[in-house]
Amino acid sequence: MDTSSGMGHDTQETGSGRAARARRVASVLRGQVLDGAFPTGVLPDERALIAAFGVSRNTVREALGLLREEGLVERRRGIGTVVKGRAYEHPLDGLAGLAEVLQHHGSVVNQVREARLVRAPLAVARRLDLPEHAETVHLERLRSMDGVPLSLDSTYLLPEIGRPLLGLARETLEHRDVFDLIETQAGSPLGGAEISVQAVVADAATRAVLAMPEAGGAVLAVERLTYLADGRPADLEFIHLRGDRLVLRASLGRLR
Amino acid sequence: MDTSSGMGHDTQETGSGRAARARRVASVLRGQVLDGAFPTGVLPDERALIAAFGVSRNTVREALGLLREEGLVERRRGIGTVVKGRAYEHPLDGLAGLAEVLQHHGSVVNQVREARLVRAPLAVARRLDLPEHAETVHLERLRSMDGVPLSLDSTYLLPEIGRPLLGLARETLEHRDVFDLIETQAGSPLGGAEISVQAVVADAATRAVLAMPEAGGAVLAVERLTYLADGRPADLEFIHLRGDRLVLRASLGRLR
Repeated sequence: MDTSSGMGHDTQETGSGRAARARRVASVLRGQVLDGAFPTGVLPDERALIAAFGVSRNTVREALGLLREEGLVERRRGIGTVVKGRAYEHPLDGLAGLAEVLQHHGSVVNQVREARLVRAPLAVARRLDLPEHAETVHLERLRSMDGVPLSLDSTYLLPEIGRPLLGLARETLEHRDVFDLIETQAGSPLGGAEISVQAVVADAATRAVLAMPEAGGAVLAVERLTYLADGRPADLEFIHLRGDRLVLRASLGRLR
Repeated sequence: MDTSSGMGHDTQETGSGRAARARRVASVLRGQVLDGAFPTGVLPDERALIAAFGVSRNTVREALGLLREEGLVERRRGIGTVVKGRAYEHPLDGLAGLAEVLQHHGSVVNQVREARLVRAPLAVARRLDLPEHAETVHLERLRSMDGVPLSLDSTYLLPEIGRPLLGLARETLEHRDVFDLIETQAGSPLGGAEISVQAVVADAATRAVLAMPEAGGAVLAVERLTYLADGRPADLEFIHLRGDRLVLRASLGRLR
């Protein structure tokens, strides 16, 4: 069936036929790796992959090569192709902090890299409904799970919300989500957030901070503007999530 | 205020202080570029950026350098730093096709690269609730907006849903979203979808197909399992969105 042709619109990919098939196999395998579909951490051997995908040995090898280039898997002598590190899921269905989301997987620790009053960059002041040159509290934290860096978060908070955080013990900033801290501070739950998600190649500085192994690794750049229950903006965050360690998930209803 | 210290937890970033500041400036500017905050396509000049961010000239230059490396902006002699291409927004709040989403921006055309019956890869068969070695219809389309490639979509459809699509005129596959086609075929609206989103570096084959200018550019790898109104899976898609051209957006309520 795989070699049938003449049905529908079969496009010739002269020269790149195998490249296209390898891409498709890699797409499916990537999802499986990130879903934790290989609990032993070892991918099926070549023969099993050939059977599972109905493609040639060379196509399987090329597909595995693509995943190795992405840093998702590596080849180990005498074992085969192994998953280099698992990815964690972060729900996109609602507003939740990383520590909340990952609490069942391990312990999230936040290394506080900066926590102080700064003049808000103009674009940040506008998003937070603050006057030009207003002060904000800037909090930068490197968030790790069981010692593995996952996320670098830069947060600009309304001064009245952020200022009390500066007085907190370092341990509090190290172990709690910003959401959690804001809600405690404000005495009321947050209302919601607007988020945008983009894929970017990590620059050298971000890569070093996140301890990303491969040059040229990708990160999810998430911008999140969070609102208080009364609709006022509370904080604006620029979040960099390691592409090889975090997957965003959501359930969607049909838009009408 | 920017140079205040001793408030809260100020972490020394010896040697990397400017790198850290440049990263933060770049994070804010990246969001502005993608939001279309510079309608003339030209970023403010160095002096204006120094004032807007309250940082040094060298920090501004380093931040612009990071955005140039990402392929978002470029320097043009006599003009300044210009946005290389705009990004389009794709809502994540609900299930919608690219052509639906972008209909007000321009004309989305789908180049059909493959449309035929194939044996479902094992992992695909499982997700679609199909028996092992079942056939599926595989549709691969390169989706462009006004001639600019945005997305490479590989879709595996239930045979009863996909088979009738193979009989459609090529023009139909070229101009309509898969959602739209399925709903017409099934005679009822779709129920919803489960999606996952990950940032990956585009492999050479994907980069070539998407005509991505920079080696090492990032893509959003979206996996989407779409359900019919009765809860049966309809199709599984592996979507690669150009990181420099598409931003996902969502409004979130607080998870409780």
